[in-house]
Amino acid sequence: MIPLRNNIASMAGYVPGYQPPDIASWIKLNTNENPYPPSPEVVKAITAELGQDGASLRTYPSASSQTLREIAGDLYGFDPSWVIMANGSDEVLNNLIRAFAAEGEEIGFVHPSYSYYATLAEIQGAKVRTFSLTDDLWIAGFPENYEGKLLFLTTPNSPLGFAFTPGYIEKIAQRCKGMLVVDEAYADFSDSNALDLVRKYENVVITRTLSKSYALAGMRLGLAIARPEVIAALDKIRDHYNLDRLAQAACGAALKDQEYFAECCRKIRATRDWFSGELRKIGYDLIPSQGNFVFAAPPDRNGKRVYDGLYERKILVRYFTDPLLSAGLRISIGTRDEMETTLKAIKEIG
Amino acid sequence: MIPLRNNIASMAGYVPGYQPPDIASWIKLNTNENPYPPSPEVVKAITAELGQDGASLRTYPSASSQTLREIAGDLYGFDPSWVIMANGSDEVLNNLIRAFAAEGEEIGFVHPSYSYYATLAEIQGAKVRTFSLTDDLWIAGFPENYEGKLLFLTTPNSPLGFAFTPGYIEKIAQRCKGMLVVDEAYADFSDSNALDLVRKYENVVITRTLSKSYALAGMRLGLAIARPEVIAALDKIRDHYNLDRLAQAACGAALKDQEYFAECCRKIRATRDWFSGELRKIGYDLIPSQGNFVFAAPPDRNGKRVYDGLYERKILVRYFTDPLLSAGLRISIGTRDEMETTLKAIKEIG
Repeated sequence: MIPLRNNIASMAGYVPGYQPPDIASWIKLNTNENPYPPSPEVVKAITAELGQDGASLRTYPSASSQTLREIAGDLYGFDPSWVIMANGSDEVLNNLIRAFAAEGEEIGFVHPSYSYYATLAEIQGAKVRTFSLTDDLWIAGFPENYEGKLLFLTTPNSPLGFAFTPGYIEKIAQRCKGMLVVDEAYADFSDSNALDLVRKYENVVITRTLSKSYALAGMRLGLAIARPEVIAALDKIRDHYNLDRLAQAACGAALKDQEYFAECCRKIRATRDWFSGELRKIGYDLIPSQGNFVFAAPPDRNGKRVYDGLYERKILVRYFTDPLLSAGLRISIGTRDEMETTLKAIKEIG
Repeated sequence: MIPLRNNIASMAGYVPGYQPPDIASWIKLNTNENPYPPSPEVVKAITAELGQDGASLRTYPSASSQTLREIAGDLYGFDPSWVIMANGSDEVLNNLIRAFAAEGEEIGFVHPSYSYYATLAEIQGAKVRTFSLTDDLWIAGFPENYEGKLLFLTTPNSPLGFAFTPGYIEKIAQRCKGMLVVDEAYADFSDSNALDLVRKYENVVITRTLSKSYALAGMRLGLAIARPEVIAALDKIRDHYNLDRLAQAACGAALKDQEYFAECCRKIRATRDWFSGELRKIGYDLIPSQGNFVFAAPPDRNGKRVYDGLYERKILVRYFTDPLLSAGLRISIGTRDEMETTLKAIKEIG
């Protein structure tokens, strides 16, 4: 009898989006990856760190990733003491729960959003409270004084694509007695973000990822911005060498090449807006998206039917069995060519 | 007032070994890094994964690192279901505590060994019990039935360098009601290991790292071997994409090049044994080492004095202020040239 903790023995575990093994033969629009390669500076930086014989790899990396905190601080307008780097933003979401919510304490999030918050809470043995959305996309029944230790607010929301306004997020921050974590995984594709609220409210934390807008899902890079006291706590909790040498090289190069980054985001937003318009023309129901994906429902509100039709054509999108979401599909925005092929397939499926 | 958990607010945080910024001008023997570069196959594999434009980095890596579980399983003689890969063995040590020890429950370890176990327990809010060593290097006063949820046994021990015998570890496994984690970070430099005990006892877990013997400290790679039920629990807890694409490429190439690995370990052991003999000749007290380092005390048992003398000569070794350890120094085994220079400096310091 292996003496596991009960919460671990009973939990199901998170299942990430499917990655087909023969990936090259698919149009893969299921995990909100960037269709473009990362900045050419990324390859140069990795190659330089690697050197001829990889000798740098024999020594430990920077434990603090201090150079990256400085680059990110510059970029977002914060002192480096307000920044922590993470092995994907998942790492820092995990560590935020460990910093603020003990066993039996409550964390909250909006459903639908990123279900991994619930998995992280289960691992910790924390309680979960979910808030639903009103038809107007506000949080339904949010308390005047929310006592949960953390509230996770994904904005832009995935899978739905809408963003809460900064004014609304500010009101939510004021109503949180615990911490408000604004998960801005998709903020680089949005018209707004909540960075100003970190300066104004000590209970606000912003998380970002380089997986989507910087095309580095394969390198596991994320960060958080918060008060130095919060960053200091997160520094105690993270693995002391959380980012490997090549990930650090990639991260610095990507954050510094803002020209490439901006052009990449511009193309994705343009393709998203064109694709959204085309789907509407054929009767699809779409929430205007601020992310690098759209959530779209066919006229018969049968998401599975269209998912299956696309799957047969080797186009992979995301279908959720949840009754709140089963009417539609989350479709990541690929290249213009990929989206033209996808649109044609959707029209064929009818 | 930022509402941190009390255990996080009050804890100090782990401080890893010092990394001098002007690393190239030092002989760096303080963090048990490998003096040789990783296998040439590692550079080839990373370069191949990276490709011309780094396009593979835009997509998520394998979540399970399944290929690596197969390679490691082959190497150690286990089914892949008995293997989990980790972002450094620190990650899996952390997740073992989360799997087995709830807040207020006890974990144990031997002091001196790896003090990071205590940090990981503090983060979890678990209690810590330390066991001292007898003069003969047995665990002092280990209970007939140890009720702690986990016991961490570092063997070969760092900083002292000795290894517990498999027979002794087996007796300890039988006396643990909870899990026995045999931390074999240095086992590749030792005459023995405890892999057989994993097959025999359901409460035994082995952890390994590629940081030392595979010269990949910079890539953060480790693994654990245990019963499939334990691996399944650890899989629920780890970040779902814990290893980035280049780390996975590096890991596979390193594990497969056993010829390079064996030669690298052989050279380090030969240098260690030569260096140990030379230090004994000048009156140093050494425990015979099974790791890639030695713990050595000068005749006057003043570790700090020799540390300072070496530091002045830009040779960095590890000194511990702990009264149990302050008589000596932990000196990593570098190249033969580096150790000749270090020996000469030690003789000069007198």
